[in-house]
Amino acid sequence: MIEYEAASAEVRAVYDDIMATRGTDWVNNFWKALAHDPVTLRRTWESVKQVMAPGALDALTKEMLYVAISATNGCAYCIASHTVAARKAGMTDAMFAELMAVVGMANETNRLANGYQVEIDERFRAG
Amino acid sequence: MIEYEAASAEVRAVYDDIMATRGTDWVNNFWKALAHDPVTLRRTWESVKQVMAPGALDALTKEMLYVAISATNGCAYCIASHTVAARKAGMTDAMFAELMAVVGMANETNRLANGYQVEIDERFRAG
Amino acid sequence: MIEYEAASAEVRAVYDDIMATRGTDWVNNFWKALAHDPVTLRRTWESVKQVMAPGALDALTKEMLYVAISATNGCAYCIASHTVAARKAGMTDAMFAELMAVVGMANETNRLANGYQVEIDERFRAG
Amino acid sequence: MIEYEAASAEVRAVYDDIMATRGTDWVNNFWKALAHDPVTLRRTWESVKQVMAPGALDALTKEMLYVAISATNGCAYCIASHTVAARKAGMTDAMFAELMAVVGMANETNRLANGYQVEIDERFRAG
Amino acid sequence: MIEYEAASAEVRAVYDDIMATRGTDWVNNFWKALAHDPVTLRRTWESVKQVMAPGALDALTKEMLYVAISATNGCAYCIASHTVAARKAGMTDAMFAELMAVVGMANETNRLANGYQVEIDERFRAG
Amino acid sequence: MIEYEAASAEVRAVYDDIMATRGTDWVNNFWKALAHDPVTLRRTWESVKQVMAPGALDALTKEMLYVAISATNGCAYCIASHTVAARKAGMTDAMFAELMAVVGMANETNRLANGYQVEIDERFRAG
Repeated sequence: MIEYEAASAEVRAVYDDIMATRGTDWVNNFWKALAHDPVTLRRTWESVKQVMAPGALDALTKEMLYVAISATNGCAYCIASHTVAARKAGMTDAMFAELMAVVGMANETNRLANGYQVEIDERFRAG
Repeated sequence: MIEYEAASAEVRAVYDDIMATRGTDWVNNFWKALAHDPVTLRRTWESVKQVMAPGALDALTKEMLYVAISATNGCAYCIASHTVAARKAGMTDAMFAELMAVVGMANETNRLANGYQVEIDERFRAG
Repeated sequence: MIEYEAASAEVRAVYDDIMATRGTDWVNNFWKALAHDPVTLRRTWESVKQVMAPGALDALTKEMLYVAISATNGCAYCIASHTVAARKAGMTDAMFAELMAVVGMANETNRLANGYQVEIDERFRAG
Repeated sequence: MIEYEAASAEVRAVYDDIMATRGTDWVNNFWKALAHDPVTLRRTWESVKQVMAPGALDALTKEMLYVAISATNGCAYCIASHTVAARKAGMTDAMFAELMAVVGMANETNRLANGYQVEIDERFRAG
Repeated sequence: MIEYEAASAEVRAVYDDIMATRGTDWVNNFWKALAHDPVTLRRTWESVKQVMAPGALDALTKEMLYVAISATNGCAYCIASHTVAARKAGMTDAMFAELMAVVGMANETNRLANGYQVEIDERFRAG
Repeated sequence: MIEYEAASAEVRAVYDDIMATRGTDWVNNFWKALAHDPVTLRRTWESVKQVMAPGALDALTKEMLYVAISATNGCAYCIASHTVAARKAGMTDAMFAELMAVVGMANETNRLANGYQVEIDERFRAG
């Protein structure tokens, strides 16, 4: 991992923008690992910054979506980091509990739909 | 698939509850396929009804989570049905666009975290 | 897909063994697609034949495992073909219903364990 | 995680039922983590108890299905806990070896079917 | 899907760049679907253009990686489109056959490593 | 895990072939875990040896495909071992960086194609 002190000016510029955007004074390991490839570091950060900014969906909803997807994929790093981010964005214990319940249920019914080979309803195709 | 007319009283009771809960006059194929197993039909419906009811998270957020997970898993039936449900719950075109952007981004960074073998930050463990 | 009539002697030998092993007079599309690569065709068939033969686990259990995995992965072809194979091996409607219930439940609790970041119990590590 | 001593009466009732059903004097971490959400704890336990009870399929087959799905999804917690449960239900070394062989093979052929874009045989559709 | 004739200037600019970069006179459905969200359309196209351009890895290798990942995930659209792209970039029948063999094998051994709970070798950690 | 000293002649023969084929004097944990099942050990090693041998695709390309699939599936053991193998086969830092960028992008667009329910273009079907 590339620490701030050891980083090139190019990488530092991204680190500075991460900290400024998030209002923090540290950078998490994900970016320090990506920093070995400054091109991917910049592209990924610019994309994440754009995608996660509040818009039609607020920041909390976006972080909870991230947690849901990461739990579905089993990415331990992403579950840990985005659960913290979601809590920081306002996720309460009750919200986390319901989030997990939906994640579990969706993963269950996804497989029931697969296994029962359910045909898509005409009305859903029109949707 | 088991249609209402051909269903047992036990299955009809679930179908009736689905239609009453959703305020619709039809039942989608997923439940008609599950109806071959009335025990799983009832258990799954009771669970879905409980999990998807508004609580700490509203119905729209829950439907969008369902879409995100279904797109991640590639369940065509679930993507089609829950996208319609999310739209019915108020998802606009702009919200769908941002939802998809988060789904794409999370699936991307999940794999970057995997591939770069990023260690979980101490601060995230404490979270 | 390569039909029997158009197949090389090498491919025909595999087709013949598939039909003899299964006691059928036809070969399903999976093998006809693989036949473009006779080396993979032979290796895959020899492996499948060895792995799916009754041993410590009977043929029905093995076919149900195949259905469970295929439903988890969302492989439509494999779900369709192995559900037929499992029924041929003796899977009843009641067994299929319970199989699907386990598939759904395991996919649900897998994600709950992920999302809640559950630490492995010492006793399970010893296992 | 919520230990028995610190648990509410509601949570203790579930813990007691888990131990009574399994004939054990301890509760594993999965349930202690879920206990932060007593509603999901109860619903999940009731569902697992119902689904995993012997019926048309015996307990051992169900535990092996759980292991197969957990290995496919890469859920480390679930692999560890259900492998122990399967062994307790009677899985021998030879059965585990064949189970793993099927898991590997199914995950392989699922992707070959995907990658070769194999069309579902008419006979399998009728199934 | 948004056809060229119905597209805004902003969307047409992306379509024009897609066709110019690829040396084609048509745009595939993926981009026409994304065009409902011009921001994601542009960001995704710019990222894909950057990532897929020949560099330390040539275009053919990159397309084959795309096919491998799409087959692993079971994304039918992506398998179809990137298999065509890989062939256009020079993938022969023999290369496709070996690609598929690796995809199958990696998906198999990934699950064997999971199921056998194999600990990472010290030498691989140093890597 | 079964060490060389404790291995049967049958298992030692596979270990010897692994070391000879790779030009190393050690065997990694994956094979030592599989050695509990000599039949699967032999079948898997013979398959891996055949599939990973240079042919229409060179060894480096095959190892990078393995890394891409393992990162997509989130198999920590396989990511660690095949990243080392790919570096040994000649993967530079720049190649690894581009490999990861493709892995991330493919996983992203796979889900966008799913979520937008993109229909396969006629031209890709012909492919």
